[in-house]
Amino acid sequence: MKKVRDFKWKKNITVKDLVNELGHVGFQSIELNKASEVFVKMKKNNAKIFLTFTSNMVTSGLRGFFAQLIKLGMADIIVTTVGGLEEDFMKATGEEFNIGTFNSDDVELHEQGINRVGNLTINNESYMNFEDKMSRILQQLYEKKKRWAVSDLLKEIGLTLNDENSILYQAAKNNVPIFCPAITDGAFGFHLYLFQQNHEDFVVDVVKDFGNILLSTSHDEKKGVIALGGSISKHHAILCTLLNGGAEYAVYMTTAHKTSGSMSGATTNEAKSWGKVKDDSDIATVIGDVTFTFPMAMIRALEVLDEEDLLNA
Amino acid sequence: MKKVRDFKWKKNITVKDLVNELGHVGFQSIELNKASEVFVKMKKNNAKIFLTFTSNMVTSGLRGFFAQLIKLGMADIIVTTVGGLEEDFMKATGEEFNIGTFNSDDVELHEQGINRVGNLTINNESYMNFEDKMSRILQQLYEKKKRWAVSDLLKEIGLTLNDENSILYQAAKNNVPIFCPAITDGAFGFHLYLFQQNHEDFVVDVVKDFGNILLSTSHDEKKGVIALGGSISKHHAILCTLLNGGAEYAVYMTTAHKTSGSMSGATTNEAKSWGKVKDDSDIATVIGDVTFTFPMAMIRALEVLDEEDLLNA
Amino acid sequence: MKKVRDFKWKKNITVKDLVNELGHVGFQSIELNKASEVFVKMKKNNAKIFLTFTSNMVTSGLRGFFAQLIKLGMADIIVTTVGGLEEDFMKATGEEFNIGTFNSDDVELHEQGINRVGNLTINNESYMNFEDKMSRILQQLYEKKKRWAVSDLLKEIGLTLNDENSILYQAAKNNVPIFCPAITDGAFGFHLYLFQQNHEDFVVDVVKDFGNILLSTSHDEKKGVIALGGSISKHHAILCTLLNGGAEYAVYMTTAHKTSGSMSGATTNEAKSWGKVKDDSDIATVIGDVTFTFPMAMIRALEVLDEEDLLNA
Amino acid sequence: MKKVRDFKWKKNITVKDLVNELGHVGFQSIELNKASEVFVKMKKNNAKIFLTFTSNMVTSGLRGFFAQLIKLGMADIIVTTVGGLEEDFMKATGEEFNIGTFNSDDVELHEQGINRVGNLTINNESYMNFEDKMSRILQQLYEKKKRWAVSDLLKEIGLTLNDENSILYQAAKNNVPIFCPAITDGAFGFHLYLFQQNHEDFVVDVVKDFGNILLSTSHDEKKGVIALGGSISKHHAILCTLLNGGAEYAVYMTTAHKTSGSMSGATTNEAKSWGKVKDDSDIATVIGDVTFTFPMAMIRALEVLDEEDLLNA
Repeated sequence: MKKVRDFKWKKNITVKDLVNELGHVGFQSIELNKASEVFVKMKKNNAKIFLTFTSNMVTSGLRGFFAQLIKLGMADIIVTTVGGLEEDFMKATGEEFNIGTFNSDDVELHEQGINRVGNLTINNESYMNFEDKMSRILQQLYEKKKRWAVSDLLKEIGLTLNDENSILYQAAKNNVPIFCPAITDGAFGFHLYLFQQNHEDFVVDVVKDFGNILLSTSHDEKKGVIALGGSISKHHAILCTLLNGGAEYAVYMTTAHKTSGSMSGATTNEAKSWGKVKDDSDIATVIGDVTFTFPMAMIRALEVLDEEDLLNA
Repeated sequence: MKKVRDFKWKKNITVKDLVNELGHVGFQSIELNKASEVFVKMKKNNAKIFLTFTSNMVTSGLRGFFAQLIKLGMADIIVTTVGGLEEDFMKATGEEFNIGTFNSDDVELHEQGINRVGNLTINNESYMNFEDKMSRILQQLYEKKKRWAVSDLLKEIGLTLNDENSILYQAAKNNVPIFCPAITDGAFGFHLYLFQQNHEDFVVDVVKDFGNILLSTSHDEKKGVIALGGSISKHHAILCTLLNGGAEYAVYMTTAHKTSGSMSGATTNEAKSWGKVKDDSDIATVIGDVTFTFPMAMIRALEVLDEEDLLNA
Repeated sequence: MKKVRDFKWKKNITVKDLVNELGHVGFQSIELNKASEVFVKMKKNNAKIFLTFTSNMVTSGLRGFFAQLIKLGMADIIVTTVGGLEEDFMKATGEEFNIGTFNSDDVELHEQGINRVGNLTINNESYMNFEDKMSRILQQLYEKKKRWAVSDLLKEIGLTLNDENSILYQAAKNNVPIFCPAITDGAFGFHLYLFQQNHEDFVVDVVKDFGNILLSTSHDEKKGVIALGGSISKHHAILCTLLNGGAEYAVYMTTAHKTSGSMSGATTNEAKSWGKVKDDSDIATVIGDVTFTFPMAMIRALEVLDEEDLLNA
Repeated sequence: MKKVRDFKWKKNITVKDLVNELGHVGFQSIELNKASEVFVKMKKNNAKIFLTFTSNMVTSGLRGFFAQLIKLGMADIIVTTVGGLEEDFMKATGEEFNIGTFNSDDVELHEQGINRVGNLTINNESYMNFEDKMSRILQQLYEKKKRWAVSDLLKEIGLTLNDENSILYQAAKNNVPIFCPAITDGAFGFHLYLFQQNHEDFVVDVVKDFGNILLSTSHDEKKGVIALGGSISKHHAILCTLLNGGAEYAVYMTTAHKTSGSMSGATTNEAKSWGKVKDDSDIATVIGDVTFTFPMAMIRALEVLDEEDLLNA
């Protein structure tokens, strides 16, 4: 049986060594270490990896890390909400987000045209620039065809960008599909609506895209889910693994608890009852802010996988 | 300045009297009492009321309460996720859900064909019956027309039902639109996909529905938001109020905290920075399990409104 | 198997009827209903009832309810922290606490001599008045004897008061001991220290009081624990039941989760591993703000017990 | 204004570099980075540093880290609960704790004599060995004198140990007082009680110890508080800084939220209203499991301080 071990700092300790030590420390550190181990296993065993995250994580600096993971081959399928994709596009086209505080004077921010997301802020101007660019892109896409599955649309948008740190760019370049089941739930939805007003035959086909995610993997293939935060991003990925026989590997990282019965707080164990993950799967649920739990667990996994030459060049 | 007041039990105390007393007790009780007051105000001032909730709340017995609120005129626009609508339909067609426990043996449940949602369970059989009925309905709808906005589709489905406790039924009957921005994120998505496989020209038009929610209210109209839980349901409603000049009234009830920057935990204050709610709006954020916070706060509001004859007969 | 049941509002619904209905609704409502049932059982079966709470609950209006419960015979042993006892004394001697907001300007409050506890406030003046009264009481007690067990000291203080809504008063009057294992952790600790400076032989004997709580019940007696919030109040009560063979009934109501391994979040299940509660005990853990979860669950229990004439007159 | 910066993994990244990067990532990562900065400042400016933690953290492998911090001069005053001190003693005398799971069969554990703390376990045997050793030590202490302030007692116990990783040992060796305001709230309380049964004149003087913590610092001295978790440990430290004019530096790391008005969730801002921390103090509140948030933030601080030769040899 694994023993609790006293943690001691050593000079210049690496993240990898810290996460290794945390495996003997207790509470959520144990789970974080286990999550890291599951990341390693899903890659080593060639699982198709679903990476899901919510918009606020793209507002944060995790955006570049997600893009890097796609490049390194650690994400084969992305599922997310549209807000994050909007912000990824904004950043890829020169917009910058600022660091503020959780205790802001929100009326004052509103007067200044500043929108708050926790302790981060986005200027109205960034949304206006986004609108300009997006309406031109929609025109070009419409000229290609009238009916678009969501993931195809997002790939085309990604191909218009040129930013190593962009999720849309890296996904398009590396043939990683991005699924976004609620594509209209953001500023982009408004632009799509305005465009359709003048182009009645323009259709965004969400039903078609259900087929696309369903066929993005199969019963025979091993499947791994990395669900950061809750929401439909998480649900859509595990619905897909459910319909494909269940995932062999699953890591849920969230601040939500199981006690309210919500999807955000639903555990990897609950997922077994549905067949979303297999009965004998490798699973971990880590409670904590994803902005640090995910980098820690994933960095250790990357170091291990890199030593064994299992990452893309 | 309002004083803290010692609470004392009196025999046969009503919910209304308890919630009135809680307004002097402290912490989340203060907020719950305030939420109740905002409910009263939004109705008295003829605001267009957006009611949003997540699927797990429909799994729970709140489903009948939501249906009742539609009937009473306390909800003019519904925004939710598709899982809840599936379960509303199941219950309306005779399926029953069971009460289990949070600490289940999920592998055993899986073997028995039982799916767990917190401490509630749904049998696989209910999903199979749902599939049968839904494929027939889709055929009928397809015969009417090929291209459907989501809320129109949901209204037609509601009209096929006959259950006072059904959200879909009451909404259809009372001309309350139901918006579901991620209509494919559930078993229903799978059925839509299968149907489209054989009916290539069948289209679910989510972009059109963005226009529908946008035009469901206006800048001139007063607007109130009741957001239960987080997810795209909450976001979609406040995106709509934002585009219509901001809500005058907003109550958020959730178990999520603002500290992770998520939409689920985003406060009514943060919403002011975006213009989702107006600077001088009446707002309340209540932290706690919606299965009891919402009935308590809403029951007091109903009693008050009923005394003034402001509810539908 | 218990079914989920749709909840419907009926005019003038009582708290009792609501809590009965919540037993069929789901998630934490199920647990809240169960907690209420455990309250009934522990009283019906003549268990010795430990009621524990943290100071902030006494700052709130629950204070009067706790006092009422002592009077009604629903609490045989109180365990709490000293802050709450200070505030109970303040209120019993005329001080009033105010309702503020969670988002205060704390620097401004500090300048005004106002201390904040969440969305409640206490004036510096109340602490000064407390000091005046307490130093006179300590002098009187010292004249009686030099060495005091904590619960004896608190009883004497309670006897100086005359307020139906006071915990100290009702406990003293009804021979309900109050245990406070960290008696010095508050303003009262400072006053004790100042007093001892001039009365070197004055001793507060915490070790003696451990014997008092230990002997306040026995292996043979049935025991019930109602732990509101976490902290040493909760731990001290269940340590006592552990040393007396374990409790037959236990309800934990808290906002803390089990995931961090803290005492505040420790569940009634975890308590079984220690023998703090018996293997076959009746238990419930309710997650939520105690200012409303506790009144709801307890009011229903009081109504049931009152009908069977099981409450003190 | 500080910008959000995309995070990118670099091979062999150190904890220090990660925490530096997290300062630009967002949400709790921002706060964690700030906490680290406050740790550096309190040491650089020669503040008297209060380190407080709850028992479960000593059950975990943080115990060795706390001991190391005392040795390095990063903690001048310790405040904690007695459970942690018992476990520190056990580990120092050869007992080992195991890693289990949050979802245990607690009845089975109980039968096996295994006590669970989250996902860690402690054997009954460890408690029995503790009892043997402690009764001998109490006898020796009693022979020295009859009346003991708590911190003096704990120092004597620390001097009997010889374990670099022990908090009691390092504290005794480095003249760092340990305050434990609820000394009887654990197995140790039971042993004290049994001992006093046969030695009636044995007194543990908690009032005297209030003076000791009060005089452990002064108005003139700069003060810093590192409060890990909530409970009386946190409260006792900030009560002491309040009585000494307020702390210049404060970091709260916890999983509790401010919404319930509890001490565990009380923020560094709320502390300003009381004068517990100064109006212009450097403060940070980090929400998350302390088993990883604290090592991360503190490791970066240690690396920075070590480069400037500000740690004890």
